[in-house]
Amino acid sequence: MQKDTIIELLNAREYIAVKNAAIEMNEVDLAELFEEIYEDCDDSAERESIMLKLFRLLTKDAAAEVFAYLDSSVQQVIIEALTDTELKHIIDDLYLDDCVDMIEEMPASVVKRVLKNAGAENRRLINQYLKYPDDSAGSIMTNEYISLKCGKTVAQAFDTIRSVGADMETIYTCYVTDALRHLIGTVSVRDMLLSDMGTVIDDIMDENVIFAKTMDDKEEVAKLFSKYDMLSLPVVDNETRMVGIVTIDDAVDVIQEENTEDFEKMAGMAPSEESYLKTSVFKLAKNRIIWLLVLMVSAMAIGAMLEGFEAAIAGLPLLVSFIPMLMGTGGNCGSQTSTMIIRGLALDEIKTSDFIRVWFKEVRVALLCGVVLCAVNFARIYIQYADIGVATVVSLTLMITVCVSKSLGCVLPILAKKLKLDPAIMASPMITTLTDACSMLVFFNLAMGFLGERL
Amino acid sequence: MQKDTIIELLNAREYIAVKNAAIEMNEVDLAELFEEIYEDCDDSAERESIMLKLFRLLTKDAAAEVFAYLDSSVQQVIIEALTDTELKHIIDDLYLDDCVDMIEEMPASVVKRVLKNAGAENRRLINQYLKYPDDSAGSIMTNEYISLKCGKTVAQAFDTIRSVGADMETIYTCYVTDALRHLIGTVSVRDMLLSDMGTVIDDIMDENVIFAKTMDDKEEVAKLFSKYDMLSLPVVDNETRMVGIVTIDDAVDVIQEENTEDFEKMAGMAPSEESYLKTSVFKLAKNRIIWLLVLMVSAMAIGAMLEGFEAAIAGLPLLVSFIPMLMGTGGNCGSQTSTMIIRGLALDEIKTSDFIRVWFKEVRVALLCGVVLCAVNFARIYIQYADIGVATVVSLTLMITVCVSKSLGCVLPILAKKLKLDPAIMASPMITTLTDACSMLVFFNLAMGFLGERL
Repeated sequence: MQKDTIIELLNAREYIAVKNAAIEMNEVDLAELFEEIYEDCDDSAERESIMLKLFRLLTKDAAAEVFAYLDSSVQQVIIEALTDTELKHIIDDLYLDDCVDMIEEMPASVVKRVLKNAGAENRRLINQYLKYPDDSAGSIMTNEYISLKCGKTVAQAFDTIRSVGADMETIYTCYVTDALRHLIGTVSVRDMLLSDMGTVIDDIMDENVIFAKTMDDKEEVAKLFSKYDMLSLPVVDNETRMVGIVTIDDAVDVIQEENTEDFEKMAGMAPSEESYLKTSVFKLAKNRIIWLLVLMVSAMAIGAMLEGFEAAIAGLPLLVSFIPMLMGTGGNCGSQTSTMIIRGLALDEIKTSDFIRVWFKEVRVALLCGVVLCAVNFARIYIQYADIGVATVVSLTLMITVCVSKSLGCVLPILAKKLKLDPAIMASPMITTLTDACSMLVFFNLAMGFLGERL
Repeated sequence: MQKDTIIELLNAREYIAVKNAAIEMNEVDLAELFEEIYEDCDDSAERESIMLKLFRLLTKDAAAEVFAYLDSSVQQVIIEALTDTELKHIIDDLYLDDCVDMIEEMPASVVKRVLKNAGAENRRLINQYLKYPDDSAGSIMTNEYISLKCGKTVAQAFDTIRSVGADMETIYTCYVTDALRHLIGTVSVRDMLLSDMGTVIDDIMDENVIFAKTMDDKEEVAKLFSKYDMLSLPVVDNETRMVGIVTIDDAVDVIQEENTEDFEKMAGMAPSEESYLKTSVFKLAKNRIIWLLVLMVSAMAIGAMLEGFEAAIAGLPLLVSFIPMLMGTGGNCGSQTSTMIIRGLALDEIKTSDFIRVWFKEVRVALLCGVVLCAVNFARIYIQYADIGVATVVSLTLMITVCVSKSLGCVLPILAKKLKLDPAIMASPMITTLTDACSMLVFFNLAMGFLGERL
């Protein structure tokens, strides 16, 4: 149902119609509806009243799920308007990881109210989860999983699932632990359904468990999901005691976030936490200005270098007309290579030990591309100016530029990785600036050498 | 277990040790082992013999799964070495989508042999699936799902799952169809486990099914997964008859592929199907040369434009020293913006209808960044040359360049999207070239205007 229809119905007090419409809708779409109301309504009192009315018309289950999908700014409006009892219900129904995500974005006063209304056990868990660093597996895990003690039968396992399964984020993989909560295996509902009810789960469990530790990098954890095609991954503490699971939906979010971060870093920006439209102008400018300044100052240095060739420029101003082509092509060649290498490193398709192989490959690609580009250039210059000297200098510079830029494009990201830096910073802007410096130096030195008598 | 140990054991005919070791290993890791043997062994006869021995030591179930994870070049070596009977077993055990993926990469002779050894029904399905275009939902779907006729009870549903579930790619969501195979709802194993055995599935099924059509773009299908947090998605034909499902592992692969494609396109390359190390030098060069040529010719045009200002350049060669800074900063500003916008469009965080809002935001960011960059530039030029004229011309050009490049960086990707082109082509290389042209034109015209008497 559309936002406007809903608002009309709410204003006309047709609450039953809205309630029924909401039941038919998917929770994600309902959450989007809240976002639309939040964004399009200018009067904040009216906005709050509409959102609250609509929220109170949701079924209890839907309310928690819709709430989890909301953006933190919208969540805050709703929390502030809810009574303590309502808030308590929502917190009880939220999955722990969603609850922790929400709390992380809230101002202190709201956090206090949320914690006050969470039960004692919930509060303890929330506080524990809040301690995991932002980029750790612990920060994206949840404690809503089915844990089975070893020695149980399939029938007993199904009883456990029936009694607690409604609250669990995933029930399809159950985790088998010993008396000390050490993770010793996993058993899938599929295997249990295909086994006799009397089978002991130890006999059908998979003991080769792939797991993560709470402090593992969440990016590495997400990679395990796409590598092993899993739906959930157990997380253990340092004593391999089971503490939580990560589910695939959160892993997919991590994958997309990391990709976005790489895109941003590779274009010379500090990554932003929020989506583009929700980031303020000031924040956007702040994220971008540092690299712009660093790169601008580097480019100034290249300019200062050109001052040394003022005589050559004054003597043969035609040379200047090749600068955009040389700088542009060098930059493009370098960013092609660095993009391929950075992406290959991110997907683990390239390892730092492949360095020589990659570099040799890039040199050959550079020679192939370089020959074509030089041929086009030489022909064009010769036809237009009938000047073999200039054509030679430009083509030679181009060839060297292509080889250098493609070499830098593969060497620098791999070097960054070796030094435990993020390869994504060695992307287009950085490579382009370095290549520019090199190509200008080569160009004017070659020009002085080959065309010296004409300058 | 490590590759070298395995090879030693195989050569020593310690087959039982290898077999036991393989049972302990995850199929993905086994597949990686095959890849390592394939890559590191130079003698092709020895390589084939080792791989075949190892493959034959795998259990029947593991063999098909390992095979599905192998790269097509490795699959080909194995297929060519297997007997017809062995091949038949593998094909029977492969999920249909993995089998189709494999066939797509094989040369005609191998395809013929695979189809000959597939059963008649399998062959018909393979041929049908092969017809779906490469970027469609049909191309990534599988027919191994559990379909339940409406009217059945939970107990009957579990019987169905028990009898056919072992062969199915996912059993956790079952699809409810009517007599004409129309998809009318989904029911999860979780809900069935939590219900009475006598419940009719129609009463607990979810009728708000999110589904795709066979010809839908697979990228859009993958987005549905991350939007609605699903594990599998039903695919229907034009008459909403159920034809297959897409599972989340394939959706994650599509997400990663699309991200890689965007990275490649945004760096001015034709996307490649294979991973970097597996792509030949010639193919890499071919993927890159077209854009390099197009952009080089454009940069030549910018150069030709500069020829018109030869007098200015000869008169005040100092001007040339600002070219790298102006071109570099313009390019960096433009690629920052275009990257943000292209990524926002790809994630549906920005819609084409947000155009005015986005542009207004970018103009304000441009003004903020521009002021800082200009201030640094003006100060530096004034301090170094004490030349207010040059400082003004450079700073003014820089301000205009930043505004133009950030505007182009948001206008062009959104325009491309409106014209149903891929926004990723309007990325850094394209924007940089356009910005270069604009900034050079502005720079020398301003120079002629402000500093005319000195040139």
